[in-house]
Amino acid sequence: MASLSHSLKPHFLSTPKPELRTTKYPTTVRMSLQESGPSVAVVGVTGAVGQEFLSVLSDRDFPYRSLKLLASKRSSGKSISFQDRTFTVQELTAESFHDVYIALFSAGGSISKQFGPIAVDKGAIVVDNSSAFRMVDGVPLVIPEVNPEAMDGIKVGTKKGALIANPNCSTIICLMAATPLHRHAKVTRMVVSTYQAASGAGAAAAAMHELELQTREVLEGKPPTCNIFKQQYAFNLFSHNAPVLENGYNEEEMKMVKETRKIWNDMNVKVTATCIRVPVMRAHAESVNLQFEKPLDEDTAREILKTAPGVVVIDDRTSNRFPTPLEVSNKDDVAVGRIRQDVSQEGNHGLDIFVCGDQVRKGAALNAVQIAELLL
Amino acid sequence: MASLSHSLKPHFLSTPKPELRTTKYPTTVRMSLQESGPSVAVVGVTGAVGQEFLSVLSDRDFPYRSLKLLASKRSSGKSISFQDRTFTVQELTAESFHDVYIALFSAGGSISKQFGPIAVDKGAIVVDNSSAFRMVDGVPLVIPEVNPEAMDGIKVGTKKGALIANPNCSTIICLMAATPLHRHAKVTRMVVSTYQAASGAGAAAAAMHELELQTREVLEGKPPTCNIFKQQYAFNLFSHNAPVLENGYNEEEMKMVKETRKIWNDMNVKVTATCIRVPVMRAHAESVNLQFEKPLDEDTAREILKTAPGVVVIDDRTSNRFPTPLEVSNKDDVAVGRIRQDVSQEGNHGLDIFVCGDQVRKGAALNAVQIAELLL
Repeated sequence: MASLSHSLKPHFLSTPKPELRTTKYPTTVRMSLQESGPSVAVVGVTGAVGQEFLSVLSDRDFPYRSLKLLASKRSSGKSISFQDRTFTVQELTAESFHDVYIALFSAGGSISKQFGPIAVDKGAIVVDNSSAFRMVDGVPLVIPEVNPEAMDGIKVGTKKGALIANPNCSTIICLMAATPLHRHAKVTRMVVSTYQAASGAGAAAAAMHELELQTREVLEGKPPTCNIFKQQYAFNLFSHNAPVLENGYNEEEMKMVKETRKIWNDMNVKVTATCIRVPVMRAHAESVNLQFEKPLDEDTAREILKTAPGVVVIDDRTSNRFPTPLEVSNKDDVAVGRIRQDVSQEGNHGLDIFVCGDQVRKGAALNAVQIAELLL
Repeated sequence: MASLSHSLKPHFLSTPKPELRTTKYPTTVRMSLQESGPSVAVVGVTGAVGQEFLSVLSDRDFPYRSLKLLASKRSSGKSISFQDRTFTVQELTAESFHDVYIALFSAGGSISKQFGPIAVDKGAIVVDNSSAFRMVDGVPLVIPEVNPEAMDGIKVGTKKGALIANPNCSTIICLMAATPLHRHAKVTRMVVSTYQAASGAGAAAAAMHELELQTREVLEGKPPTCNIFKQQYAFNLFSHNAPVLENGYNEEEMKMVKETRKIWNDMNVKVTATCIRVPVMRAHAESVNLQFEKPLDEDTAREILKTAPGVVVIDDRTSNRFPTPLEVSNKDDVAVGRIRQDVSQEGNHGLDIFVCGDQVRKGAALNAVQIAELLL
């Protein structure tokens, strides 16, 4: 089975493991290679998210009639072992999508822009992990637990191609926790500060490797290697490396602002975000302050979150045990804790929460595969 | 000269060093051992902040007639070399404060509670770094750049003892940046998320050592040693280890809420905070969302901060260069960047900023010594 090649072993000490699940979201399909399944293509299969696509497809026994593994010319011809079979990576071309029903794209925005429409023309449903089409009118931007209805009418097997966009990882992780509360009391404003892992930085495996390399170098008193990141990342943190826009926000932050509005179909919701990279390997954390139209007390909020799909509550005040990125690494669920009434707002109109989620998994590959499952 | 024994060498690459100063705050005194200076005692001199007291006193040529270095019985008799002289650490007793004019305390809350009032009775002015007296009515809680007037009437040499409290490190770092803006447009609400370093965790040197040790262990595939922290800290982050109170906030967070009100002398200012520990050695970072009574545009805010004492603006959007904890480590100034109009608030009534400051220095020792300077 394919998996992300680079990962530090997580060590859980002292505190018991939370009940984090890898397949809580209901799956109706329990087989993999089968005649009735769709033919699936994975575009960008040699990247970290591409590899995670395979891992998730396997974990969830996603059914497929055939599987095409596509990548750039440079990677074509490579062998990938998956579910006891050996696949040969094929070069991505305009001809790649003949007879493909579902194409999972994670090869960067320019590849999506070039080949996404071609795949759709050939009748494929493209689930795109890049930001290329997220804000395009008519392209559903979907978190399956949040707004599956945005995909109404799109169905595998109709030979009618379609584009569906996977939201940005920070948006997905935030909204997994915020949406159940939003449904109950309507969020009017949200102030988010993120604690983002190395894995979110473009080439995830290379970024994690650089953090590890830098850490070893700094511990040895050597200057850190800065290829992917412009500055020391080990034992340091810095403003997210996305380009900064005219209004002073970086692209990552504005994704949270804009994608939230589209996913919630609420152009009035106010969002501000400050996105920071911290020296953590794989999972993101987010501090989220919520303002509600209607009052919502913290006990009700905790109960709502406990029954929310894809969410696990870790909120033990006595033993000071709350979500951490390490605990959610390689897990499907988004963990929520520090659920408390905001003392800066009156009449139970505010809450503070702290959220952690694996950005490679629920923040990317899992969310895309869940979208594909809904299409079957 | 004494200094914090444990520190990882900072490496600055690619980007030029910011103009961070170590003595921007004006000093009127430029000598050290001199007849006209006060007799000074440092309580808890063997701890990290105690050591930093010595470092700051020396850096700033703080004048003193005599210097008593006090610690627990266990440390008494030890030699400390300071300004080319050798001092012997004396045991802290009720008799320690005879003829002491200024006593800088950083030996924990219980020592402050026991010996602070004794020192005051003997006519000493106690500048206390613990939380013991911060919220006590009549005890000034002072950041010299923010509310020096709170100490009006307290003067060295009058033989009239007094207690002055040093605020919590996170509060100091936040308010160094927020106060100049507050003076201009009146802050009505503040949402803070912190990124706190190991050095803030009680025994600073030991905490930093544990983070380093854990990191080495995790890199070698070993389980991390968890003595000071209950869980893996290396390549991880977690909710601040302070006890969680009835309202779900931890003590660190409520310090920010309450101390801000006292320092600004504004019982109506709304503050919420989420305090998180990140695997950084020495300096804290804070993401601060501000709501103002009056409009304040980002350009004006930037100009205000550029001239604020003890503050340096690092806000280069083009090269994505903003404050980092590494850059402010061992520096006096608090660095502010990511200054931008909050898109979630209308009519220029909101700003987002990102602040970094050395929590051992401006967050503790420097602030206390600055208080002492104002008393001369």
